[in-house]
Amino acid sequence: MAHKHGHGRERIQFANTEDKQEFSKYPTKAGRRSLSRSISQSSTDSYSSAASYTDSSDDETSPRDKAQVNTHGNSDFCVKNIKQAEFGRREIEIAEQDMSALISLRKRAQGEKPLAGAKIVGCTHITAQTAVLIETLVALGAQCRWTACNIYSTQNEVAAALAETGVPVFAWKGESEDDFWWCIDRCVNTEGWQANMILDDGGDLTHWVYKKYPSVFKKVRGIVEESVTGVHRLYQLSKAGKLCVPAMNVNDSVTKQKFDNLYCCRESILDGLKRTTDIMFGGKQVVVCGYGEVGKGCCTALKALGAIVCITEIDPICALQACMDGFRVVKLSEVIRQMDVVITCTGNKNVVTREQLDRMKNGCIVCNMGHSNTEIDVASLRSPELTWERVRSQVDHIIWPDGKRVVLLAEGRLLNLSCSTVPTFVLSITATTQALALIELFNAPEGRYKQDVYLLPKKMDEYVASLHLPNFDAHLTELSDEQAKYMGLNKNGPFKPNYYRY
Amino acid sequence: MAHKHGHGRERIQFANTEDKQEFSKYPTKAGRRSLSRSISQSSTDSYSSAASYTDSSDDETSPRDKAQVNTHGNSDFCVKNIKQAEFGRREIEIAEQDMSALISLRKRAQGEKPLAGAKIVGCTHITAQTAVLIETLVALGAQCRWTACNIYSTQNEVAAALAETGVPVFAWKGESEDDFWWCIDRCVNTEGWQANMILDDGGDLTHWVYKKYPSVFKKVRGIVEESVTGVHRLYQLSKAGKLCVPAMNVNDSVTKQKFDNLYCCRESILDGLKRTTDIMFGGKQVVVCGYGEVGKGCCTALKALGAIVCITEIDPICALQACMDGFRVVKLSEVIRQMDVVITCTGNKNVVTREQLDRMKNGCIVCNMGHSNTEIDVASLRSPELTWERVRSQVDHIIWPDGKRVVLLAEGRLLNLSCSTVPTFVLSITATTQALALIELFNAPEGRYKQDVYLLPKKMDEYVASLHLPNFDAHLTELSDEQAKYMGLNKNGPFKPNYYRY
Amino acid sequence: MAHKHGHGRERIQFANTEDKQEFSKYPTKAGRRSLSRSISQSSTDSYSSAASYTDSSDDETSPRDKAQVNTHGNSDFCVKNIKQAEFGRREIEIAEQDMSALISLRKRAQGEKPLAGAKIVGCTHITAQTAVLIETLVALGAQCRWTACNIYSTQNEVAAALAETGVPVFAWKGESEDDFWWCIDRCVNTEGWQANMILDDGGDLTHWVYKKYPSVFKKVRGIVEESVTGVHRLYQLSKAGKLCVPAMNVNDSVTKQKFDNLYCCRESILDGLKRTTDIMFGGKQVVVCGYGEVGKGCCTALKALGAIVCITEIDPICALQACMDGFRVVKLSEVIRQMDVVITCTGNKNVVTREQLDRMKNGCIVCNMGHSNTEIDVASLRSPELTWERVRSQVDHIIWPDGKRVVLLAEGRLLNLSCSTVPTFVLSITATTQALALIELFNAPEGRYKQDVYLLPKKMDEYVASLHLPNFDAHLTELSDEQAKYMGLNKNGPFKPNYYRY
Amino acid sequence: MAHKHGHGRERIQFANTEDKQEFSKYPTKAGRRSLSRSISQSSTDSYSSAASYTDSSDDETSPRDKAQVNTHGNSDFCVKNIKQAEFGRREIEIAEQDMSALISLRKRAQGEKPLAGAKIVGCTHITAQTAVLIETLVALGAQCRWTACNIYSTQNEVAAALAETGVPVFAWKGESEDDFWWCIDRCVNTEGWQANMILDDGGDLTHWVYKKYPSVFKKVRGIVEESVTGVHRLYQLSKAGKLCVPAMNVNDSVTKQKFDNLYCCRESILDGLKRTTDIMFGGKQVVVCGYGEVGKGCCTALKALGAIVCITEIDPICALQACMDGFRVVKLSEVIRQMDVVITCTGNKNVVTREQLDRMKNGCIVCNMGHSNTEIDVASLRSPELTWERVRSQVDHIIWPDGKRVVLLAEGRLLNLSCSTVPTFVLSITATTQALALIELFNAPEGRYKQDVYLLPKKMDEYVASLHLPNFDAHLTELSDEQAKYMGLNKNGPFKPNYYRY
Repeated sequence: MAHKHGHGRERIQFANTEDKQEFSKYPTKAGRRSLSRSISQSSTDSYSSAASYTDSSDDETSPRDKAQVNTHGNSDFCVKNIKQAEFGRREIEIAEQDMSALISLRKRAQGEKPLAGAKIVGCTHITAQTAVLIETLVALGAQCRWTACNIYSTQNEVAAALAETGVPVFAWKGESEDDFWWCIDRCVNTEGWQANMILDDGGDLTHWVYKKYPSVFKKVRGIVEESVTGVHRLYQLSKAGKLCVPAMNVNDSVTKQKFDNLYCCRESILDGLKRTTDIMFGGKQVVVCGYGEVGKGCCTALKALGAIVCITEIDPICALQACMDGFRVVKLSEVIRQMDVVITCTGNKNVVTREQLDRMKNGCIVCNMGHSNTEIDVASLRSPELTWERVRSQVDHIIWPDGKRVVLLAEGRLLNLSCSTVPTFVLSITATTQALALIELFNAPEGRYKQDVYLLPKKMDEYVASLHLPNFDAHLTELSDEQAKYMGLNKNGPFKPNYYRY
Repeated sequence: MAHKHGHGRERIQFANTEDKQEFSKYPTKAGRRSLSRSISQSSTDSYSSAASYTDSSDDETSPRDKAQVNTHGNSDFCVKNIKQAEFGRREIEIAEQDMSALISLRKRAQGEKPLAGAKIVGCTHITAQTAVLIETLVALGAQCRWTACNIYSTQNEVAAALAETGVPVFAWKGESEDDFWWCIDRCVNTEGWQANMILDDGGDLTHWVYKKYPSVFKKVRGIVEESVTGVHRLYQLSKAGKLCVPAMNVNDSVTKQKFDNLYCCRESILDGLKRTTDIMFGGKQVVVCGYGEVGKGCCTALKALGAIVCITEIDPICALQACMDGFRVVKLSEVIRQMDVVITCTGNKNVVTREQLDRMKNGCIVCNMGHSNTEIDVASLRSPELTWERVRSQVDHIIWPDGKRVVLLAEGRLLNLSCSTVPTFVLSITATTQALALIELFNAPEGRYKQDVYLLPKKMDEYVASLHLPNFDAHLTELSDEQAKYMGLNKNGPFKPNYYRY
Repeated sequence: MAHKHGHGRERIQFANTEDKQEFSKYPTKAGRRSLSRSISQSSTDSYSSAASYTDSSDDETSPRDKAQVNTHGNSDFCVKNIKQAEFGRREIEIAEQDMSALISLRKRAQGEKPLAGAKIVGCTHITAQTAVLIETLVALGAQCRWTACNIYSTQNEVAAALAETGVPVFAWKGESEDDFWWCIDRCVNTEGWQANMILDDGGDLTHWVYKKYPSVFKKVRGIVEESVTGVHRLYQLSKAGKLCVPAMNVNDSVTKQKFDNLYCCRESILDGLKRTTDIMFGGKQVVVCGYGEVGKGCCTALKALGAIVCITEIDPICALQACMDGFRVVKLSEVIRQMDVVITCTGNKNVVTREQLDRMKNGCIVCNMGHSNTEIDVASLRSPELTWERVRSQVDHIIWPDGKRVVLLAEGRLLNLSCSTVPTFVLSITATTQALALIELFNAPEGRYKQDVYLLPKKMDEYVASLHLPNFDAHLTELSDEQAKYMGLNKNGPFKPNYYRY
Repeated sequence: MAHKHGHGRERIQFANTEDKQEFSKYPTKAGRRSLSRSISQSSTDSYSSAASYTDSSDDETSPRDKAQVNTHGNSDFCVKNIKQAEFGRREIEIAEQDMSALISLRKRAQGEKPLAGAKIVGCTHITAQTAVLIETLVALGAQCRWTACNIYSTQNEVAAALAETGVPVFAWKGESEDDFWWCIDRCVNTEGWQANMILDDGGDLTHWVYKKYPSVFKKVRGIVEESVTGVHRLYQLSKAGKLCVPAMNVNDSVTKQKFDNLYCCRESILDGLKRTTDIMFGGKQVVVCGYGEVGKGCCTALKALGAIVCITEIDPICALQACMDGFRVVKLSEVIRQMDVVITCTGNKNVVTREQLDRMKNGCIVCNMGHSNTEIDVASLRSPELTWERVRSQVDHIIWPDGKRVVLLAEGRLLNLSCSTVPTFVLSITATTQALALIELFNAPEGRYKQDVYLLPKKMDEYVASLHLPNFDAHLTELSDEQAKYMGLNKNGPFKPNYYRY
């Protein structure tokens, strides 16, 4: 969905074919699409609908046509309704409770103001959690202007609360394509203020600056990019020799990866299946396609609740891991007739084919935890001999002529984004990583970073982790001088070589 | 809630103090309240709201004041709207897919019609799953009249579908107390038809017959009772020498108990916590009060998803089991300050006191999986110095003067009934047990059962289990003649002595 | 093996056919054979060989022919070598460290001397753990005379240590059949001392008293019996109306059962397989025959270490439990070709047939955790076309003509007794239960127990458990008066009804 | 132990201080010491003692002084007793059954003889498993000469069996230091044969060639090195610019690492503790120091069997993983008083200090799964106020003046090598990796490998894994052309980028 819109936007805006190609190729070896990238869907479907009850659609006027001013007389923003600020503030406060790592960072670094002088233009989902990030950046000395990376995901009340405190925010839920780029433009193109840092999620902001205001890059000290897609674009630019500032790829940091994939999916597979189908896991025969981090998370959880899980793999190393972890490794076609649940986690396409869908037993549940909605060949199910019956939100029964029903969840889109929620704790890790990446790039001495794409230094990755340990009342052990010397380590880390697998 | 209404109803109807006492004492050593008993809540909160979209409340006329007739010209029923029958039929068909055990029983016993001649009056929740039971009873030869055991739990469309096929149903969602007893009366007190079997859930129907139509018992061959409360009432009657027909306690059959408690709670604790709080389980410190079947289920699931679980117990045997299963056994007060989640599963009251609530840390989640809403001393939280803030359906923040928030779920009522759903598979086991109990009592030779309360014979318990094995493609092994002889067993069971612990 | 000897002994001693029948019928519905009953094997194979290094067999003189006296001048005993007492004392001290429950009982009851006046004759395995029991009984006021229930299991040094402190012990490792009964006789038939309590393990002592000194029963207040076999004999006597004193069946107490079966087997299946075959569990395909407590323990452990486990069952209830716990339920013949390991836990015979052994794949490991060595049809493997090759102690390769090897452990006898050890903690639970049963029977008011077989009162079962909780630093919660009243419970227990399943 | 001998050997042989330094520095950041490196201990302690019963030490003549000839008249070998060949052959055959991957490689590559022309000199443990490797190399066309990398680990019968088939083997159990180097020399320095490939385990062979026959390297196409120590030496040489041929580090291949550390330790921690202490795991409080792969393996297994596990860590990322996996993260001193078992897995030294040993409770078990015997400060326990009591092989009680006992296993050396065994399956993975590395280096086109240390190409790592999948009856899925294109992958792999974490 997000992807389709992405193409849509690009098609509308640019005639230049070369440029289009540069940005529209999907990463060929992409890992898992960033949760943050697509959080709009989950936000729309569940959380934000609960949180935004003031957001009744009686007000049809476009925010662009409204004249709004906050209680301080400031009007440098464009949100749905500045009067929703109070409700949004409460949402931010609730989020703060689960983002103590960020609050802690705020406190630790507040004295030295490591972002003093930073002028950050940001383009991310605008949610309560993002607000905690933005207000942390401000507390550390930065000036920020912000817009949304997704036309659906903005929590209007939160945007209002930010605008009320003086952050120039340009975003609302339900923007048009034109609104989307207008908002980005208003963030970048403003009198008397020029960004020297970019925080992007998806690459649209970066793209826009490249196309419209390339001179901005003269002052920009770095780009921090969150998403698989955006990172891919940056690598493309770098390969093409067109990247003109250092960029930090925060998507691939260890901590973020483990939480987005292994730990988060371990819980969301259960949640997503339960909310949509009320299935009882005990004794269910489940096949999980793909035993990467996402597959490992799904398998662990399902097995733990009594499902009988087997997996499919193309990679013999992952397959051998599955064996040792107690999962039978099978070909999908060998087992498809017996399965109660089929879950795809491959990053590939047509992993579940129409031929296999034809052979499933009555009541089989099919869903996708992988990266795109093509893992299951859903398109093949939209054919005249099959009947689709929507039985709940996100749940379709596909009915074969003989009466057999297959239960398709979220039309093959990502189950965990469509049908479950992302815990604030996971978002806290992402946001903390972003903040540290900004601090690092902004303060790095000349020459440390060149015009290339970098991973977050391991030491900062470790710092992100350490900020989250108090949530668990976890107590780290410190090396003695003698031990540090014996191990050849600095007492403050980093503690592992770069190739360490965790 | 259900309990309060129960008392309410009794207070209104009866002047006889002695009778009241007999029925209103809560079971002192009750096990877990039957899920079926209270399913209304879960049905109301989640499933039925999805399933009953035709049930718009534009029609304010009481069903008692409407003249309705089904397409066969029959008017011996009283439902919300007979025109909803088609939608209800689809719901029943969907339920049938997950109740293959009952369908299988229907097929196996259809030829011999073991309930031919049975006239069953039933008082249960009226849901799609119940409809599958009722239609199975009819297929086996019985005549049925049915009413609801709960004023909120009726799925109106399902009631309509039953009425359409000719089952006299008297029930709708949102009955008044008066309606409730009127419906029961219409089932029992009908010209030219007299019940010879009773299927009850909660004991209200039995109670009514005792009070109003005691002569009915002359023809009744037996009562099948589903709920803890109803079973307790029967044992009271029996002790008092007033039970005048055999009764079957299906609440305490092994299969039902394991599913209602251990297996179902293993899944619903995760579901209930996730739907209400989006909590991430990994690393959370959880204390579970009580290590009975419910506690065991909760602990298993939470530990499996990475929570760090400790338990409290009064019984040293259960405590020793907890030790061996890898849980620290603590007193609540020792750990209360560190806990992220507190879960009660004791069947006792004031297990979590105000003093302990005062000492919880900010953000601590408190909920109840036990039998009543007094396990947590919620009443003590309704005091002026504390602020209650409803943040979502079923989720309250209780705010202390210093800003500390405790997250209370479902106001201390049963979490799994309020905030998660009961899988059809569990209901299938209950319904199958009920059907077999009816068949057994109706066909038992004179003298097998006296005026007492019986447990289902182990052999039938085993039969219920065996009917559900095909769901798992499970293949039972049969004893050879030689092996049966060696073991001193009948090849068809029962396979275990009565005291076997499973 | 032990069983065969049992028969042997009886055949030698008794001409009376009727009596023989009474005792030789194997329990038809026996639960699991008591670990203690057969501990001789494990003791012989592993632990005692380590512990008894002073026990070199250079001394071939029969203890019966030796004149020995302890340092106090006492000679009322018969052991291998009284000079080994010091080494034995150290063994007892080490055992005491893991039997703190018994030590604690010793301390708690020492003041009141609840066994003052008790004259206990005992016939059990004589190991360091038993010594801790005996010395506890003495500390509580009892006089004891002791003999061995197994001709192989005596730890000579421990027997010496007991004799040194003045306990008349008659036992050594490697007794002949004749020695065995001579020792029993010396315990019972002694001038100026007549037993008033019997502690038996296997029923041989009881049997001897019945046959030779029936008048002893006039003074005996009760029998405490430990083993399945002995308990079965007692029930036979009771049925036949020949039981003339109360007897306590300690084999079937909850705590003992759970530890002997579920918890102990959970660990010993891994230990037994590892010590014999060095197998790597990860990814191994294992079929466990029988999903009772023993099977549940085995399955849990193997699954936890990455084996892929399926089960066979005859009982649909246990089969349904296996499904919910995540194990496929199969017939052995369906899967036998794929299995890496086959484990029997049924209590039945010929569960693994020659035909199935023929179909196993090369290298398949076969072993028995059930009650007798007939679960696997080992006899069928002793045929000319198969070659047996002993590759290690307790490990045979059975080689088919085509070169296929099946790995048979312990010749089909109990794996955990033959190839692993029994933790002292398990023995502590047994010993504590025995001590409490003796106290209860000795102190019971006239009339509480009749000439029948009793289970230990639940309250004492709970007491055994509570004595073991300090090992785990477990803290029990106490009921408030209000809570006890609400639950209808005594604050000190018992806390559960008798039928509670745990 | 092995380490000490290593130093010993070097001290004896070389006067050149510079050379000594180069080789004697222990890796400062070493990962886990290779299992193969030290397998001698496990082999000595358990397996080989079972397997080598013909190895009675009645023959005191040094093999160097014996004239032996095999049945083909060949005398180019030096083993303990050529007549033991038949027994050794059987051992090899048994090993072949669990090394089907290697047999499969033998079959697949036998036609093309990829090692035709290879002259391999090898220095490894000489066990049945190694024999399967050597005979595979021969089957693939190589000529081999072999010696032992450890003076204790040779299985004499296996060496005899190899010599009997014509492989020049120079090795026996119980070599002196002088024998050790003499054997190496006899392998390298032989008339009319010059090695062109080296397979080493520990670096001693490589070292010898460097010192004595540097000209050999003119013909050598590559070195394959197995151990941490040997790999470290190679990196030192490479850094110093002295490495004159390509070398392959097989120690750090993914598959080998996961099996040596995570999977193997998951099982061996249980085995090692059980064999030495007969501990019951259920409910035991355990602290595991270090949550790397070894620690993860230990924690998983212990938790699965009911232990209550907490961990210590210096690295916040690993600590956060522990939290999410459900383990409390503590400092050792905070919990030391309560622990039943303390396990070190850090690779560091003095992780358990004397001060902490002083505070342990009576009966606490202490052991080491890490890399050297300095993790526990065992030296501090060798002080006059403490009494050491050896209670079993590998088990010491350290007794404090107040009677407190701490149970120290294997004197702080590696538990899994000292007290448990290494499954053949793990050795199969190592051996297959070695064979593939030899094939790769021998056949690599000019220029592919330079004078540097390489990791095995990922594709070959995947091939090793794929050869082991049939053991599990695992079926890999193949990419379709369309899918391979979509993913940008070759259908035959490699399937993952180099940085993939698995």
